[in-house]
Amino acid sequence: MGRVVEVTDVILRDAHQSLLATRMAMEDMVPACEDLDNAGYWSLECWGGATFDACIRFLNEDPWERLRTFKKLMPKTPLQMLLRGQNLLGYRHYEDGVVERFVDKAAENGMDVFRVFDALNDLRNLETALKAVKKTGKHAQGTICYTQSPVHTVAAFVEMAKSLQSMGVDSICIKDMAALLQPQAAYDLVKGIKDACGQEMRVHLHVHSTTGVTMVSLMKAIEAGVDIVDTSISSLSLGSGHNPTEALVKMLAGTGYETRLDMARLLKVKAHFAKVRPRYKKFMADYNAVDTEIFDSQIPGGMISNMASQLREMEASDQMAEVLAEVPRVRADAGYPPLVTPSSQIVGSQAVFNVLMGERYGTQTTEFSDLMLGYYGSTLGEKNAEVLAQAKQLSGKEVITGRPADLLEPEWDQLRAEAAKIPNFNGSDEDVLTYAMFPSVAEAFFKSRPEGPKNLGQDPAKAA
Amino acid sequence: MGRVVEVTDVILRDAHQSLLATRMAMEDMVPACEDLDNAGYWSLECWGGATFDACIRFLNEDPWERLRTFKKLMPKTPLQMLLRGQNLLGYRHYEDGVVERFVDKAAENGMDVFRVFDALNDLRNLETALKAVKKTGKHAQGTICYTQSPVHTVAAFVEMAKSLQSMGVDSICIKDMAALLQPQAAYDLVKGIKDACGQEMRVHLHVHSTTGVTMVSLMKAIEAGVDIVDTSISSLSLGSGHNPTEALVKMLAGTGYETRLDMARLLKVKAHFAKVRPRYKKFMADYNAVDTEIFDSQIPGGMISNMASQLREMEASDQMAEVLAEVPRVRADAGYPPLVTPSSQIVGSQAVFNVLMGERYGTQTTEFSDLMLGYYGSTLGEKNAEVLAQAKQLSGKEVITGRPADLLEPEWDQLRAEAAKIPNFNGSDEDVLTYAMFPSVAEAFFKSRPEGPKNLGQDPAKAA
Repeated sequence: MGRVVEVTDVILRDAHQSLLATRMAMEDMVPACEDLDNAGYWSLECWGGATFDACIRFLNEDPWERLRTFKKLMPKTPLQMLLRGQNLLGYRHYEDGVVERFVDKAAENGMDVFRVFDALNDLRNLETALKAVKKTGKHAQGTICYTQSPVHTVAAFVEMAKSLQSMGVDSICIKDMAALLQPQAAYDLVKGIKDACGQEMRVHLHVHSTTGVTMVSLMKAIEAGVDIVDTSISSLSLGSGHNPTEALVKMLAGTGYETRLDMARLLKVKAHFAKVRPRYKKFMADYNAVDTEIFDSQIPGGMISNMASQLREMEASDQMAEVLAEVPRVRADAGYPPLVTPSSQIVGSQAVFNVLMGERYGTQTTEFSDLMLGYYGSTLGEKNAEVLAQAKQLSGKEVITGRPADLLEPEWDQLRAEAAKIPNFNGSDEDVLTYAMFPSVAEAFFKSRPEGPKNLGQDPAKAA
Repeated sequence: MGRVVEVTDVILRDAHQSLLATRMAMEDMVPACEDLDNAGYWSLECWGGATFDACIRFLNEDPWERLRTFKKLMPKTPLQMLLRGQNLLGYRHYEDGVVERFVDKAAENGMDVFRVFDALNDLRNLETALKAVKKTGKHAQGTICYTQSPVHTVAAFVEMAKSLQSMGVDSICIKDMAALLQPQAAYDLVKGIKDACGQEMRVHLHVHSTTGVTMVSLMKAIEAGVDIVDTSISSLSLGSGHNPTEALVKMLAGTGYETRLDMARLLKVKAHFAKVRPRYKKFMADYNAVDTEIFDSQIPGGMISNMASQLREMEASDQMAEVLAEVPRVRADAGYPPLVTPSSQIVGSQAVFNVLMGERYGTQTTEFSDLMLGYYGSTLGEKNAEVLAQAKQLSGKEVITGRPADLLEPEWDQLRAEAAKIPNFNGSDEDVLTYAMFPSVAEAFFKSRPEGPKNLGQDPAKAA
């Protein structure tokens, strides 16, 4: 027996979020659950901001009901979710009481492993959520968003890991959403964290496959001692998705490492999603096998398409090249935030403004000023003092250095009162939380909920 | 500076052979040639059996003219071809004089690197071709077809490599056409060959990406000292094709290894083929990101589709499972040939017969009897004596143990005389060779040649 490498499959969340615009209907996942539950996974990721949002926005499906169904169908394997720290599954900071309530309810409905991250890697934005998870007795995973910049050294990430350890996390996740983690860096980072935090601190690696190098990064991370890796069943893998689960198993032959996975079960899951996938063809991104340009631009694909549509609206599509060149500068001025929701949109929009206005930072989006002034949290890099001064002047706001959520007043009662006014509100805390996450979408969803879930997949023979 | 890993790009041959049914028109390759030639490749693979065949069968294009055009457009970078040993680019053994003539003419028209292989790994089938290449002063690369079986140990492959070395090859290729070479095996094999043949013996690794593990195998082979690897520009990569070139470059960051490739040139080549690819949509295989089942069945995807169509013709599609189970048994009985053209077809057809006839080997295809009796060469494994006896009896032929081509009489004059009878034969040795490779197709091609090359690509907006 070699050393066991544990595996989390992301087929029920990030795989279809990355490849099918999060549109997969619950009824297309249910038939795979028995095999998934018996395949030997460490956990199954199945819930997060985009799946929650898509449930109520597109699928007329109650995301809490989805969670309960998963729990019922997969009682053996821990269920895992992705939580945006103080933002929960939404796009703003929530007051601590709401964060605690959300975590309690998620745990109560069946969630076992909480992967908690913050877009800026400001660990203060993880504190409340991690504490709440610990209190429920569930698995609290602290997350480091991987990015590349002059300040994002291995040493800096290792410091972050040590801080997470001192916060009492059960494991540490390295989250490489843009597939930037190259093999040697993966090795150095995992080894650095293990050396600093002790071999008993579990390290979990999440990578996408966008750049085509991260299957090798998984191998190198395994050699460095990583405990758990994220993959996706092969029939919904690669591209901007993830590395294929079955290939991970086969990759390890003869290496002295092995998974606990049952290949016969995996192949049944593969066959199921191979049938499902063509039904969602119209939500699939254009074919783009591999994109290594991200290494140079540091700009994830989703961010490029956002900026392109902004430019189109402003009839300035011819200025894309200047905007792309502006992004790294804006990112540097803002203290090198990782580019992930929402920082990617904030940096991207400001880059568009800088180019179109012909004057840097003379016009700032509210969000960009807030980012500069600390309202999203702190960044690892120093901010450009001149741009910071402009942000203060333009916004009329002061710099904050404390935890952003400390500015917030308790809001649960008001959220409940507001939710209660919506027709078909069912009175549960879960419904209040759904409303809190996505107020306007929740309103429409509560109204249409009685009609039941929709399946947006199409017979591939009929789809053109 | 780290150790340099050299790269061969297969975009002009194996990439479109594997992903677009070899249909790419020359005019869709020409615009990329300048960038390819200046990108810093060790060689550019651009010619082989399927491209030659497709030129005259589908594209009404003279394959020799294609070669001359490549040479003119890419004068700096060695051009490389794949040669089936004594079979040249055809499906039968040719007499030595024809082999020599073919190699001479290929060299004269611009070929620089000859990768010579035999489907059975019978090195006697490489001898004449390798000697002929040496005589022209070009690069003679001896090839080991990688496969897995009880007899295909690292030690056995290393012995093969030593034999190739003693035949005077300039380099040794490990050819993994079915993507079966797992990372640890890649490491062991490359290290074994280097240790046995000396570090100065160049080792070149060719892998497909079908099983999703071979990008990692490339990394491990590099760690073991491999000199040259095959990849394909990313916009025509992955699936049953190859690992992406740009990702290989990025994979090596910080590892102490590096390529000589110019990323700006690569990205221009990528952009070009990203535009070309959709024009050949109707020739693209169905989406199948990753196929790890090959490890268990040892049956390459192309072979499965061949057997499926055989079964359909015989109205026995329901017996596919039995046939799939029969293949490994037939392969074992035949002495574990690697499953690659033509052995894959021979083994597959016999497996179909064994199942449908309800009696093993009572009926044998001519080709299977010939394989058993040594008419394709020798296999590494022992043959099943009982099946061998049946083959003798059914065919009325004797076992041969010598080199199959030793049975052949000089045939050049007759080939020329036959070719000369075809309208539009241009009198050149190249035309004789074209006729020799594919007699019936050549006849039709010579007739239609004056009409000029066809482009089978379609405007993707118009293609359904």
